[in-house]
Amino acid sequence: MAATQKNSPTNIEVKLRSRHLLGTEGLSANEIQSIFAAAGQYKKMFSAETRKLSVLQGVTVSTMFFENSTRTRTSFELAARRLGADVVSFVAATSSISKGESVDDTARTIAAMGIDIAVVRHNCAGVPLRLTNVIDAAIINAGDGVHEHPTQALLDAFTIQERLGKVKGLNVCIVGDIANSRVARSNIYSLQTLGARVTVCGPRTLLPKEFEKVYNVGVEYDLREAMRNADVVIMLRIQLERQASGMFPTLEEYRKFYGLNRSNLPDNVKLVLHPGPANRGVEISGEVMDSEICAVTQQVTNGVYIRMAVLTALAKKNKNG
Amino acid sequence: MAATQKNSPTNIEVKLRSRHLLGTEGLSANEIQSIFAAAGQYKKMFSAETRKLSVLQGVTVSTMFFENSTRTRTSFELAARRLGADVVSFVAATSSISKGESVDDTARTIAAMGIDIAVVRHNCAGVPLRLTNVIDAAIINAGDGVHEHPTQALLDAFTIQERLGKVKGLNVCIVGDIANSRVARSNIYSLQTLGARVTVCGPRTLLPKEFEKVYNVGVEYDLREAMRNADVVIMLRIQLERQASGMFPTLEEYRKFYGLNRSNLPDNVKLVLHPGPANRGVEISGEVMDSEICAVTQQVTNGVYIRMAVLTALAKKNKNG
Amino acid sequence: MAATQKNSPTNIEVKLRSRHLLGTEGLSANEIQSIFAAAGQYKKMFSAETRKLSVLQGVTVSTMFFENSTRTRTSFELAARRLGADVVSFVAATSSISKGESVDDTARTIAAMGIDIAVVRHNCAGVPLRLTNVIDAAIINAGDGVHEHPTQALLDAFTIQERLGKVKGLNVCIVGDIANSRVARSNIYSLQTLGARVTVCGPRTLLPKEFEKVYNVGVEYDLREAMRNADVVIMLRIQLERQASGMFPTLEEYRKFYGLNRSNLPDNVKLVLHPGPANRGVEISGEVMDSEICAVTQQVTNGVYIRMAVLTALAKKNKNG
Repeated sequence: MAATQKNSPTNIEVKLRSRHLLGTEGLSANEIQSIFAAAGQYKKMFSAETRKLSVLQGVTVSTMFFENSTRTRTSFELAARRLGADVVSFVAATSSISKGESVDDTARTIAAMGIDIAVVRHNCAGVPLRLTNVIDAAIINAGDGVHEHPTQALLDAFTIQERLGKVKGLNVCIVGDIANSRVARSNIYSLQTLGARVTVCGPRTLLPKEFEKVYNVGVEYDLREAMRNADVVIMLRIQLERQASGMFPTLEEYRKFYGLNRSNLPDNVKLVLHPGPANRGVEISGEVMDSEICAVTQQVTNGVYIRMAVLTALAKKNKNG
Repeated sequence: MAATQKNSPTNIEVKLRSRHLLGTEGLSANEIQSIFAAAGQYKKMFSAETRKLSVLQGVTVSTMFFENSTRTRTSFELAARRLGADVVSFVAATSSISKGESVDDTARTIAAMGIDIAVVRHNCAGVPLRLTNVIDAAIINAGDGVHEHPTQALLDAFTIQERLGKVKGLNVCIVGDIANSRVARSNIYSLQTLGARVTVCGPRTLLPKEFEKVYNVGVEYDLREAMRNADVVIMLRIQLERQASGMFPTLEEYRKFYGLNRSNLPDNVKLVLHPGPANRGVEISGEVMDSEICAVTQQVTNGVYIRMAVLTALAKKNKNG
Repeated sequence: MAATQKNSPTNIEVKLRSRHLLGTEGLSANEIQSIFAAAGQYKKMFSAETRKLSVLQGVTVSTMFFENSTRTRTSFELAARRLGADVVSFVAATSSISKGESVDDTARTIAAMGIDIAVVRHNCAGVPLRLTNVIDAAIINAGDGVHEHPTQALLDAFTIQERLGKVKGLNVCIVGDIANSRVARSNIYSLQTLGARVTVCGPRTLLPKEFEKVYNVGVEYDLREAMRNADVVIMLRIQLERQASGMFPTLEEYRKFYGLNRSNLPDNVKLVLHPGPANRGVEISGEVMDSEICAVTQQVTNGVYIRMAVLTALAKKNKNG
């Protein structure tokens, strides 16, 4: 608890070409590693004495969540505040969206109050991209429909690299509702860019065979087969509401065929990730989740540092670019 | 993004006679211009290097919103934090109001935690006035029923002055649900005090002829007629729920008779305002809203500075008075 | 409003043996007096010039409210911020709890973002205790089911001591839904530890005779009899929903038999407390509530200082222990 508020003699630099972060698609390996380097430095500083920096002092960050997620929003807000930024928290449920205002107008209004960086989540793919033409702020996509959720993928890859020393050359298997998962999409892009081989696995109703060609990944419908050579397994949260829409018969059946547990986890797997919140006993057993092999808590911790790195990058961009 | 946290060597002074801001009714032209001067100085400072001041350091501002409005609440909270104040955010929906506590007791409770300035919104006219007798804090009315919403009117007039150089002598036309609009009332008072001539326009069901005598304004039921000599038009948001109560037949009919669009906007009008959130395509067309003549975004930006000026005034009052 | 941000040359020390505050049960009189001393010092400082301290700079406090209470949450958050801590506010209603995540996993997730002190409220008794084994943060129980609400009891006793000069030797009567009240339980423990004699009073359906032996308190079913020798009366809020479950016939009948008003309040009673929010005209009349004898507002003010003292104690513990 030794508290030191340094006046940011930090020379942490993150090199992104874009002034927005809309996805991991198109990020170069160098850009990703530059984010990881900054996140690593922040983690080191905050694991030691530092508790607060002033790198982003005078910067106002707004979390514009048109779809709520306390977890992701809190992570971004903590990241921003630890860098000394001011935070404007906006959640659609309690806002003028319910009064019929358009997304563009809502974003314009918040931005007009003086926002430098907008962290946007929306259940429609493309809204963050669209807003880059509507407001001046730098935009971070915090999840848009089934499109992308780049900071989640970055923290996943950062955690893999931290645990296993590298991402390059690893076999990573992503399991679950692939078709509807922005986490899967963002992970495919960044993991491939970093040199991993990706296999996706799930029920046929949630994983079209076409993924093979579109995303250049392995597609498997049998979990054991999918994990046969995997170094890392990323289990996705199964949306309980998918069952209602007939995508799979029962949770019990889903667990039976696609749930990870101690007895079906092969020895070659060295790391299990889950973006959370997890359905314990459905897609992942409590035993696996609580064991050393599962990095779910470490992912959350790293998430704050990854977001600090991204915020640093975009604040700098905004200044100089 | 050059961040400078100055230790408030600011000599910004705002001269209000009252220690509360309950309405624009009764404010003198000098008081209003004193608020404008401070708002203008703040705007200048924050458009340059300044990002944060410590003018209100140690002051605790509470937003007590018994009726939610993310937009207005966020504007006040940003204003308070940019001046270095602490903010206690209170929204009734999640509070003990739903447990049956009285407004007085809720206000007393929040105030007892140590509040210097309370920003109050309530759907009953008179609640902010009433609370001046219940708690010690300075009270800012952020909208009470159909009574007043003074900071909205101040930011409107400030925007007019910024755009057109003056308010005095201008013809201002306010269009919409006049009878139920606290924005209209507050604007009538402040615009007249500043020397403008005000005409109000709307359907007969939403605009009693008596307004003419009570408020000393022109009353028109025909939009073109109302705008004939107008320099400025303020379009009010039409509450969609009014239709249900039979105040007008359909949104389409409302749009037809009272909606502003490119074809009915006369050349003499140099500025269009809207307090937001707007129903695009109902009271105002997207074309007009997105054109240079409409200052809706500028209004939002100015709102933060106006609120900074008002907070500064009342914090000083509290100290010295 | 003279604002001084001191760099904490404070030597305020609070001596707690545990690194958590789960209840008042088991706290020694010395520990309680140590909290009171610190709360008193903070109150003195903030009644003079001080408006903010940096005692907890670099400490992150999370309010984890699985059951909402704006009043208690705001008090903790203000206390934390006045000491310079960062606050992460978490309310279950808008969180992944509604997505089916377990309490343990939610707490782990928030804690993994880097939390030093977690202020936990939950409608199940024992959750705060349980979380001491789940996360590393120091835990403060802010109310768990019908078990305990220690900071409420501490602020009650502090207010008694402030008003009457002592707690030792006083007769304290607690009136209301005793069986379901965590406030009653926490008060029984701390008041007895400080040397007061406690009598509890309420309808038979809400107060089992066994309380006499289990808690070593007097049990009375007649209000006048219960208050006969009382120096202090603590009125509990009657949960309006109890009526629906048949625990008493009507609010009017409850008021008649257990409501405190000017005519049944005996002269020997020198102080009336209520934890709030109060049902005016039910368990307590407006007249009594607004009279000098009732310290309901003073309780709220003291609550912030008691919580500052507790936060200081646990932050120190975390550092050294």
